[in-house]
Amino acid sequence: MRIGMVGLGRMGANMTTRLLRGGHEVVVYDRDPAAVARSAEGGATPADSLAHLVAQLGAAGARQAWVMVPAGTPTEDTVAELFALFQEGDAIIDGGNSNYQDTIRRAAACAERGVHYLDAGTSGGIWGLAEGYALMVGGPDAAVARIRPIFETLAPAPDRGFAHVGPAGAGHFVKMVHNGIEYGMMQAYAEGFAILRAKPGFGAHDFKLDLAQIAEVWRHGSVVRSWLLDLTARALAENPAMDGIAPFVSDSGEGRWTVAEAIALDVPAPVITHSLIARLRSRDALGYGDRLLAAMRHQFGGHAITRLTKVDA
Amino acid sequence: MRIGMVGLGRMGANMTTRLLRGGHEVVVYDRDPAAVARSAEGGATPADSLAHLVAQLGAAGARQAWVMVPAGTPTEDTVAELFALFQEGDAIIDGGNSNYQDTIRRAAACAERGVHYLDAGTSGGIWGLAEGYALMVGGPDAAVARIRPIFETLAPAPDRGFAHVGPAGAGHFVKMVHNGIEYGMMQAYAEGFAILRAKPGFGAHDFKLDLAQIAEVWRHGSVVRSWLLDLTARALAENPAMDGIAPFVSDSGEGRWTVAEAIALDVPAPVITHSLIARLRSRDALGYGDRLLAAMRHQFGGHAITRLTKVDA
Repeated sequence: MRIGMVGLGRMGANMTTRLLRGGHEVVVYDRDPAAVARSAEGGATPADSLAHLVAQLGAAGARQAWVMVPAGTPTEDTVAELFALFQEGDAIIDGGNSNYQDTIRRAAACAERGVHYLDAGTSGGIWGLAEGYALMVGGPDAAVARIRPIFETLAPAPDRGFAHVGPAGAGHFVKMVHNGIEYGMMQAYAEGFAILRAKPGFGAHDFKLDLAQIAEVWRHGSVVRSWLLDLTARALAENPAMDGIAPFVSDSGEGRWTVAEAIALDVPAPVITHSLIARLRSRDALGYGDRLLAAMRHQFGGHAITRLTKVDA
Repeated sequence: MRIGMVGLGRMGANMTTRLLRGGHEVVVYDRDPAAVARSAEGGATPADSLAHLVAQLGAAGARQAWVMVPAGTPTEDTVAELFALFQEGDAIIDGGNSNYQDTIRRAAACAERGVHYLDAGTSGGIWGLAEGYALMVGGPDAAVARIRPIFETLAPAPDRGFAHVGPAGAGHFVKMVHNGIEYGMMQAYAEGFAILRAKPGFGAHDFKLDLAQIAEVWRHGSVVRSWLLDLTARALAENPAMDGIAPFVSDSGEGRWTVAEAIALDVPAPVITHSLIARLRSRDALGYGDRLLAAMRHQFGGHAITRLTKVDA
């Protein structure tokens, strides 16, 4: 079927390619004309504005556009502009990592004029082009059914990796929790390898464990085997010392939303919470709290303070 | 090759079967004669004592016995008895979940009389019979090389899922950290599904998410796909309400050893630590700490106390 793709970053461009390979017609728009040109070379129909994209989507009332831009203002602005161009029966799919509460609000606004609003939590990263994307879709039944051929092409196979999980907002909620779990799993692996790396030896033997070897053996038959471990094994084989990589871990919001939601729902989630806190700590170069703790120890016990040499703050 | 298998529980019996299928000769002993009889029906050579097992292992100095009994006293006693029966050049492989410090001690004691001591951290659970076991092996090079045909048969394939990770103790150390990671991963999934389950709806829609559906969609193409998720999806499909399962989670020691080791090595491991604490909490039926907290709130703020109705403690 024909669909618009708005946003041709790593995710949107790869999804366009996967849709074209699956026999769909994809009309593409991005703020960057070079990104549009690249997708056009691959067979997509270029558009130089959102209005131009919508004009090429066919009959009003049966059009659909997939929005794959960063969460927050970019999504808000794109959805608002599409909504103004769309009519009753047209459908907007937000495939980004929007906060599900924004999605519920946008869906309600669209519904007032009969524009369908779907949220498609999308997982798979840069590997999705080859392996397919896991899709957690929220929205009204009829609209989900109409766009199903698109979901089936993006998923790893027509019969798996896609689910209509509930009304609008449910898709992004499920994706949010997915990412919270991802934080916890990543942190568990990271801690385990840090412990292995710190071990100086066994009994009388000085011996440093080979982390790449261990990651590789765990990939086969062990209880901790996973796709994340496959990637971890790759990273450790390429660069076991993590040379050139600062101990600075970003987050794009979904972990903190998961923690806030867990608290709002009275659900104890210590591991997901601590995996978020570990990321915050990794970015705390100022270390104000740690410095205050050292100062307290000095105050009550006269314990030595390690003087600042590296950080000038 | 010929090998003795001591301990025919779920792990030892399945490993015996896998070794027999791989063309090895396995002499088996267990305290339970019925277990010995079952393995003998499958083609193993039965023994009615450890001495009888050792007598059937061939020429002294080239014998090997795999010990697959619970960690602690059962392993200690079995190893001591085998050591007394074995001579220089014979080899003991501890495939259980022993503490790596016990392994280092036992290996040093065995080495004094030239008996090889190997530790084989073994992962794969009841699925290992069909899929093979991940094996993390510690011990001297020559002994590991000699017993390699056994490891290659137990592993998922001769060229993967087996690694000689270091001297004696290293195998159990790596397996210990593996299990610590496993605790963290399991807890991350458990918390995520608990959050999904608690969600009452989206916007104007009362709606309960279908946890089995979500686990299934995550299995294909998502970043959190894993073997543990495959098992979780099975469990949720069979019994999404977790009916009949008490919220009581046991631990068999490796998580707490990992946490102690992380602290001893000055490695912060908040997620593995909190996954252990979550298990301790699941078993804290007395709830003394929580009761004291409620009493404190009452003391300073006059906050209401929820009176005990269920637990009579």
